[in-house]
Amino acid sequence: MLDIFIFMAAYFRVGLTCCSTRSLLCCNSFTNFPVMNLDKLRPDKYLKYLNPTNLFATKRTKEILSANPTIIPHREEATDVTVSVYDYDSNSLEERKMSGINDCFAYKNSGRTSWINIDGLRKKDVESVCAHFDIHPLIVEDILSLNQRPKLDEADNNIFCLLNMLYYNETTNAVEQEQISIILAKDVVISFQEDAHRDVFNSLRERLKSPASKVRQRGADYLCYNLLDMIVDHYFIVMEKLGNRIEEVEEEVSRGNNPRVLTHITQLRKELIVLKRNFSPVRELVNGFLRSESGLLEERHQKYFKDVYDHIIQAAELSENYRDIIVSMQDLHINNVNLRMNEVMKVMAIVTCLLAPATVIGGIFGMNFVAIPWLHSPYGFLGAVIAMLVIPIWMLSVFKKRGWF
Amino acid sequence: MLDIFIFMAAYFRVGLTCCSTRSLLCCNSFTNFPVMNLDKLRPDKYLKYLNPTNLFATKRTKEILSANPTIIPHREEATDVTVSVYDYDSNSLEERKMSGINDCFAYKNSGRTSWINIDGLRKKDVESVCAHFDIHPLIVEDILSLNQRPKLDEADNNIFCLLNMLYYNETTNAVEQEQISIILAKDVVISFQEDAHRDVFNSLRERLKSPASKVRQRGADYLCYNLLDMIVDHYFIVMEKLGNRIEEVEEEVSRGNNPRVLTHITQLRKELIVLKRNFSPVRELVNGFLRSESGLLEERHQKYFKDVYDHIIQAAELSENYRDIIVSMQDLHINNVNLRMNEVMKVMAIVTCLLAPATVIGGIFGMNFVAIPWLHSPYGFLGAVIAMLVIPIWMLSVFKKRGWF
Amino acid sequence: MLDIFIFMAAYFRVGLTCCSTRSLLCCNSFTNFPVMNLDKLRPDKYLKYLNPTNLFATKRTKEILSANPTIIPHREEATDVTVSVYDYDSNSLEERKMSGINDCFAYKNSGRTSWINIDGLRKKDVESVCAHFDIHPLIVEDILSLNQRPKLDEADNNIFCLLNMLYYNETTNAVEQEQISIILAKDVVISFQEDAHRDVFNSLRERLKSPASKVRQRGADYLCYNLLDMIVDHYFIVMEKLGNRIEEVEEEVSRGNNPRVLTHITQLRKELIVLKRNFSPVRELVNGFLRSESGLLEERHQKYFKDVYDHIIQAAELSENYRDIIVSMQDLHINNVNLRMNEVMKVMAIVTCLLAPATVIGGIFGMNFVAIPWLHSPYGFLGAVIAMLVIPIWMLSVFKKRGWF
Amino acid sequence: MLDIFIFMAAYFRVGLTCCSTRSLLCCNSFTNFPVMNLDKLRPDKYLKYLNPTNLFATKRTKEILSANPTIIPHREEATDVTVSVYDYDSNSLEERKMSGINDCFAYKNSGRTSWINIDGLRKKDVESVCAHFDIHPLIVEDILSLNQRPKLDEADNNIFCLLNMLYYNETTNAVEQEQISIILAKDVVISFQEDAHRDVFNSLRERLKSPASKVRQRGADYLCYNLLDMIVDHYFIVMEKLGNRIEEVEEEVSRGNNPRVLTHITQLRKELIVLKRNFSPVRELVNGFLRSESGLLEERHQKYFKDVYDHIIQAAELSENYRDIIVSMQDLHINNVNLRMNEVMKVMAIVTCLLAPATVIGGIFGMNFVAIPWLHSPYGFLGAVIAMLVIPIWMLSVFKKRGWF
Amino acid sequence: MLDIFIFMAAYFRVGLTCCSTRSLLCCNSFTNFPVMNLDKLRPDKYLKYLNPTNLFATKRTKEILSANPTIIPHREEATDVTVSVYDYDSNSLEERKMSGINDCFAYKNSGRTSWINIDGLRKKDVESVCAHFDIHPLIVEDILSLNQRPKLDEADNNIFCLLNMLYYNETTNAVEQEQISIILAKDVVISFQEDAHRDVFNSLRERLKSPASKVRQRGADYLCYNLLDMIVDHYFIVMEKLGNRIEEVEEEVSRGNNPRVLTHITQLRKELIVLKRNFSPVRELVNGFLRSESGLLEERHQKYFKDVYDHIIQAAELSENYRDIIVSMQDLHINNVNLRMNEVMKVMAIVTCLLAPATVIGGIFGMNFVAIPWLHSPYGFLGAVIAMLVIPIWMLSVFKKRGWF
Repeated sequence: MLDIFIFMAAYFRVGLTCCSTRSLLCCNSFTNFPVMNLDKLRPDKYLKYLNPTNLFATKRTKEILSANPTIIPHREEATDVTVSVYDYDSNSLEERKMSGINDCFAYKNSGRTSWINIDGLRKKDVESVCAHFDIHPLIVEDILSLNQRPKLDEADNNIFCLLNMLYYNETTNAVEQEQISIILAKDVVISFQEDAHRDVFNSLRERLKSPASKVRQRGADYLCYNLLDMIVDHYFIVMEKLGNRIEEVEEEVSRGNNPRVLTHITQLRKELIVLKRNFSPVRELVNGFLRSESGLLEERHQKYFKDVYDHIIQAAELSENYRDIIVSMQDLHINNVNLRMNEVMKVMAIVTCLLAPATVIGGIFGMNFVAIPWLHSPYGFLGAVIAMLVIPIWMLSVFKKRGWF
Repeated sequence: MLDIFIFMAAYFRVGLTCCSTRSLLCCNSFTNFPVMNLDKLRPDKYLKYLNPTNLFATKRTKEILSANPTIIPHREEATDVTVSVYDYDSNSLEERKMSGINDCFAYKNSGRTSWINIDGLRKKDVESVCAHFDIHPLIVEDILSLNQRPKLDEADNNIFCLLNMLYYNETTNAVEQEQISIILAKDVVISFQEDAHRDVFNSLRERLKSPASKVRQRGADYLCYNLLDMIVDHYFIVMEKLGNRIEEVEEEVSRGNNPRVLTHITQLRKELIVLKRNFSPVRELVNGFLRSESGLLEERHQKYFKDVYDHIIQAAELSENYRDIIVSMQDLHINNVNLRMNEVMKVMAIVTCLLAPATVIGGIFGMNFVAIPWLHSPYGFLGAVIAMLVIPIWMLSVFKKRGWF
Repeated sequence: MLDIFIFMAAYFRVGLTCCSTRSLLCCNSFTNFPVMNLDKLRPDKYLKYLNPTNLFATKRTKEILSANPTIIPHREEATDVTVSVYDYDSNSLEERKMSGINDCFAYKNSGRTSWINIDGLRKKDVESVCAHFDIHPLIVEDILSLNQRPKLDEADNNIFCLLNMLYYNETTNAVEQEQISIILAKDVVISFQEDAHRDVFNSLRERLKSPASKVRQRGADYLCYNLLDMIVDHYFIVMEKLGNRIEEVEEEVSRGNNPRVLTHITQLRKELIVLKRNFSPVRELVNGFLRSESGLLEERHQKYFKDVYDHIIQAAELSENYRDIIVSMQDLHINNVNLRMNEVMKVMAIVTCLLAPATVIGGIFGMNFVAIPWLHSPYGFLGAVIAMLVIPIWMLSVFKKRGWF
Repeated sequence: MLDIFIFMAAYFRVGLTCCSTRSLLCCNSFTNFPVMNLDKLRPDKYLKYLNPTNLFATKRTKEILSANPTIIPHREEATDVTVSVYDYDSNSLEERKMSGINDCFAYKNSGRTSWINIDGLRKKDVESVCAHFDIHPLIVEDILSLNQRPKLDEADNNIFCLLNMLYYNETTNAVEQEQISIILAKDVVISFQEDAHRDVFNSLRERLKSPASKVRQRGADYLCYNLLDMIVDHYFIVMEKLGNRIEEVEEEVSRGNNPRVLTHITQLRKELIVLKRNFSPVRELVNGFLRSESGLLEERHQKYFKDVYDHIIQAAELSENYRDIIVSMQDLHINNVNLRMNEVMKVMAIVTCLLAPATVIGGIFGMNFVAIPWLHSPYGFLGAVIAMLVIPIWMLSVFKKRGWF
Repeated sequence: MLDIFIFMAAYFRVGLTCCSTRSLLCCNSFTNFPVMNLDKLRPDKYLKYLNPTNLFATKRTKEILSANPTIIPHREEATDVTVSVYDYDSNSLEERKMSGINDCFAYKNSGRTSWINIDGLRKKDVESVCAHFDIHPLIVEDILSLNQRPKLDEADNNIFCLLNMLYYNETTNAVEQEQISIILAKDVVISFQEDAHRDVFNSLRERLKSPASKVRQRGADYLCYNLLDMIVDHYFIVMEKLGNRIEEVEEEVSRGNNPRVLTHITQLRKELIVLKRNFSPVRELVNGFLRSESGLLEERHQKYFKDVYDHIIQAAELSENYRDIIVSMQDLHINNVNLRMNEVMKVMAIVTCLLAPATVIGGIFGMNFVAIPWLHSPYGFLGAVIAMLVIPIWMLSVFKKRGWF
């Protein structure tokens, strides 16, 4: 608002001081001065609603929309690949970090249960591992694909599942995903991760170290259940953080003074799309484990997969609720903005309207007719000013009575 | 509106009285005075639509969005646990309040039907009870979880179900939920409640005391049906109270003068989310009892579970109707607000427009040309004023004819 | 509009006549006079859009939202109960009005087909009838319930169905419902109605009197089909009347001058909720008859129930069409209101804008500079007035060329 | 716009010429004159958006909403009934137009395939035909019903189907429907049409005349397939014409100057309801032929019914696409209207705002203070006028810089 | 904006210079001059929002809406038809371009696997090929149809499928489709394409040339899988390009200065309709291969069809995500436009409102009463001007305090 103030000031400065120069140069001087000021002031003021260019993450949209299951292998080869093996039974545990991919081949028939976790994907490595463990070439393709839809694939001697681990990036407020492929074969679980630096399995690693833990007592399918369970449970952590973000944005809506709210809401809707794209196929995936009659799955572990299934359904329903909340937040926000704007316009219109009669009265007695009544009366001016005052007051009282305030 | 009035008053005071001081100090004095007044008046006036900060329960959103089935046990241990046992057959009833959790172990094979109700959840207690009654460890986890989705779990020797009792808090207008877990085993029903202070089973307790009551004649599954039935029937009481709230908000909409209506509607939509999240899984749950072939359920009680099933379907459909009503309420409200605003703007625009010709006429005869006709005529002023009067009247009649009022 | 006219009149009366009193009292007099006028005029004018308080049937919402299947028996006992019995075979018909409920017990095994119709529900009566005819106590509860969802219940020796007869109240434009319970047992049909004064079975009663009619030739299940058929057929009569109401409201929309249209549309949407709540469960109900393998239903009557099924599906689809029509009606209405308002605002803005240059010209030549050109020219005034005239005309032609009219 | 021009003209005529009469009579004269003009001009101008009364076909709504399967036989008896019979085998064809309905009874067991086509429905005729060909009385009722939902009914010795032929009326842009009932019995196909004057079977009649055509080689079920196929194929012609209409309306939207666009869009949505009401049940109907195990249908003709099935599914999906297109057309239209209106309002507001400073400057130097600076300066007037010119230019440049144009 | 500037300039030129001519001719001169200017300036300025006539591709709508499965064979005969044959087994490959259609008949029982690809459809050719390979006449009709829905048809000796290859036209931003029909018979795959100039099979042709490639080792069904796989994989390329287009439009939305954004969004929604129309039936089609028990399909290739099935599901889900993104983009755009417009209107209203008190003060002291206080005071003018300055500043500070900026 300052700039209009400055404009007012400058406008009268013309009338009061500069006019003595009787030249147009004064105009140049004052247009220079405040305009420079305006340039500095602008972004924080009127235009705050108008220029969300940099705020709006079109790059994020591209990420969300990209999907390219088989055709063009954009995937960059991982620079370093880490292989870690947990080979255990209820009595003993061997934990190894491997230098090369080939060293894990020995665990094919170790007589114990083995978990081979491969961080970082390199085409050659994946192919050699899969060849060694008799995995179908189509699955190799799936492991190496990008933005693949979560899926389950059951073969005679193994079960393959591919899904995404989700992380919540608190800096960008985005839900990030990392593809993980899990192969359950006889006494072996092989997991492939894209990123060597993070996963959600640390508590499982701890439990494996304890001989008393259930996972040590049971076979490879229970291990596989554990991996799925930890991935799905981590979805709830992601949702909780997203829930916190929703709460923040809702507070922005209720404070009502942040012009970026709508952009934030749009962003939240995009993140929900990421969740939705994962939850529904993961539900099918876990259901696939439940319906499977593979010999690799013990009957008594059915219950555990049922438990994961219940959780993923709950996650899916919860994300629907998130959606509802966000939509009604958006409705509320748009209405608040409109009400605020309307209120301002209404007051402006009323003030302008109230001052109009005074202008008319001023015009009447400013006419140059020779015979205007009361012009010569000593109370004429007072009467006119009182009329100028009384008419708006009366109009106000009428407006008030009609509930226009 | 008063403050604009004050502004008008102050504005003329400048012209009439303060001007004699011929200094700018008078301006300071009146800007101080009314602004203080304004500060006091503001919240009740123009800004009433603009600042719903405190009204908007973002905390409520957080509650609704939270869900955390297994991972982090936020759950606080209950400080005191109450165990009450009803051990009965058609002839006799033993009702006991227990001091410790272990005392209820005796009722495992009492030869009569036992209802063990445990108010307040403590991890150790739940685990020891479940161990004693051969309940699977995953179920212990479910019982201790927070914001779990209603679910049914059938094992060889027991049926476990978890659902929420709903209460309507008339102070906050929120639907509150309390998780209840029910285990039906051979001749025993064990129920776990979070909150020791309220439940919905009092009328059942009364009926248990009467030897003639049907529940005394029948076994544990009929008791279990009774618990479910009372929980589901209480949903209708909650919905009735929510229905009353909808009616209140609808009256606010129709009175049309409450700026918080939209916030209230948004709040109602949130509460409906709570209902929806409960009804649909409870329907599945009851259907699970219907489809169950467990030996724990007598064939002849099928009919009763079918009855509960009908009720929960009715509740679900009714909540859909609530949703429809609320949505069309919101439409109506937004339209009423817009109509009201438009009406005010229209009248202001028309009044401003009607006074404009008078200003022009005033301007014409206020010009300082030496040769203006009628200036010297004694009827000139009268003619001009009449023109100022007649033109707006004519404009009005045109507007009127076009239906603009 | 009259009051603004009055305001204009009063406003100039101040300038012309009252000013001679030179006091503020005149203001009081004219604020009193027109304000009284305003009070009388107001409701028919500006505020017509603003105050739909009394129009908006919140009571209707409450009725639609209420549902209370078992818990609290709000139901008032009927003051008088009418029992009518039609006992017939193809040869003979006995029609009786009973004084007491017990008299109908004789028809349990009359050897002929009996239709016992009980108008008015009294707890004791229903219980005694049901006990006599071996009806399950849960069904007694259903019969006595209020706002129950239509349902079918099949037992060994009888089939119970509960549904609503719908009536269209042309005064309130509301769809009213009356609960009817029908029990089909061996050779007996018992029907319970809430209201003694109206039902939809009169044409059936006529047909029963004719020995040649099909219903006389056939058994109790055919009678039961007839009852269902007449109830469902009456739905179409209700829908036709609702369709007429939609047509009326649509005409209001197209005439575009009724501020209550939106309220009427909202009301129609509520009535559709009533239809929807009945049609979908009745479809299930009739489907239950189709799928039933009860010995009470003859194979050859399957076709008839299929026919009712087709009708109820058609009714359900039709009500969806009604919904679509109403929604697009609402869209059209809101748009018409906005267009009308915008058009008025546009004309006002244009007129105000057109008069602004004249004000400026008046201002220029009204300045008191000593050296203003043309002031002393005899054509100066004429030129200024012509400029005041020509500039708006030119602006108009520009606006016109741009298609702003 | 002309009338505002006239108003401007008249307004100045008062000031310039009529004022010499010094009476109010002149006002009467000019209010009479232009108002008459206005009356003639009005409908083509401002009010063009406001009064779509006659455009809006509420009658069409009534037609679409009507449905009356059995109850009240509104159906008028056909005044004349035409019966045409095609009795053929691969060798010979007999084509006859009958005078009376009874003459077709001979074709019940003609040893050849017979197609009896009855144009015009008379209750007595339908009943006697159906009695002769052993059709169930409920089917007679269906044939005579109005606005029946398409349905299939399979009996031991015949298959009955009822559907609508659709026609596109290019005058009213409405989709019209004519009910057709087809009965397939052993070696006989009987078709009942409402309207004697049009059907879609002419190309079939041509093909029947050619002994080489497939329909002559095959039996009654193939004939029945041909009837269905031609009806469904004609749906695509109707849709194509409706598609042309959508294209026309879309062009109106893009030209943006037709106030009836919204009415046209609403009308299109109504016609889509007619399509939707037909397509979905016809799909079920054809599916019924596919699933039927009736001896009347040859196995090898299954493929043909599958083909019809594919077409009706495509029609249903296409009508969904139509709906999507129409909805986004409506969005676009409403936005265009709003943008256009906002643009006009914005320009008006800017022009009014730009002229306001000039008014203020005129006011300042029009004050009657004795000591106003520069009043006596010869450049005073020039300076003021330059200020009046420079300030709006500067404001413009500021507005421009902020992107408000 | 320039033209209003010109209007301002011209307006004062009248006052300053032309008036000396004292005639109305000057008006003609200046109306001519700027109007010519306006004509040139207009399209780039105010009307930019208003006239999207040429932008809006109604022709595209027509293309999308057209569908005409059997009835009228619009299809033009191809002018030239290219037949290419790949006849191969694991040892040898014969690749031939044929001059005439009959030359390919020799490959019916070549003992090797043959792929006959026919580019360009001519009725006679298709019929003769189909007759030779025992294809059902209905399939001939399907191959020749236009805008057919993707479908699968399984006969005893062959499997027929029809689907569309999609291409993204980067010039028109439209998704183009080319119908392809594939017939899988014993050891032969016949494919019919509409357009001789493009297809998506080039990489397959390369692979066929390599004896080591899997496709050379396997039979006709594997070849058929390859064709389907490449078509479906190409859908992702189309979607990626459409995704890029969405990103572009989203950037337009965020830059906020392109009036055609809404048209672009509408266009995107139309292209999504094309995708949706293809994906859902192709999913059914591939599922048909999965469920087929035809002897033409080897069991071990099931996995490959499952892979295609997964891809088409992913494509379908992705297109749903596209839809969501586009819808929220549209919401954001409309809101940005409204906010921008409201902001401008608000500033205009505030400026107009702030200048109103100055006009009133000017009017007060411009009245011609003899007795106006301070008129003769030397500080009167200064005081009035200061009041004109101070009141708007004070109003500004009040507006500011209320958060109206």
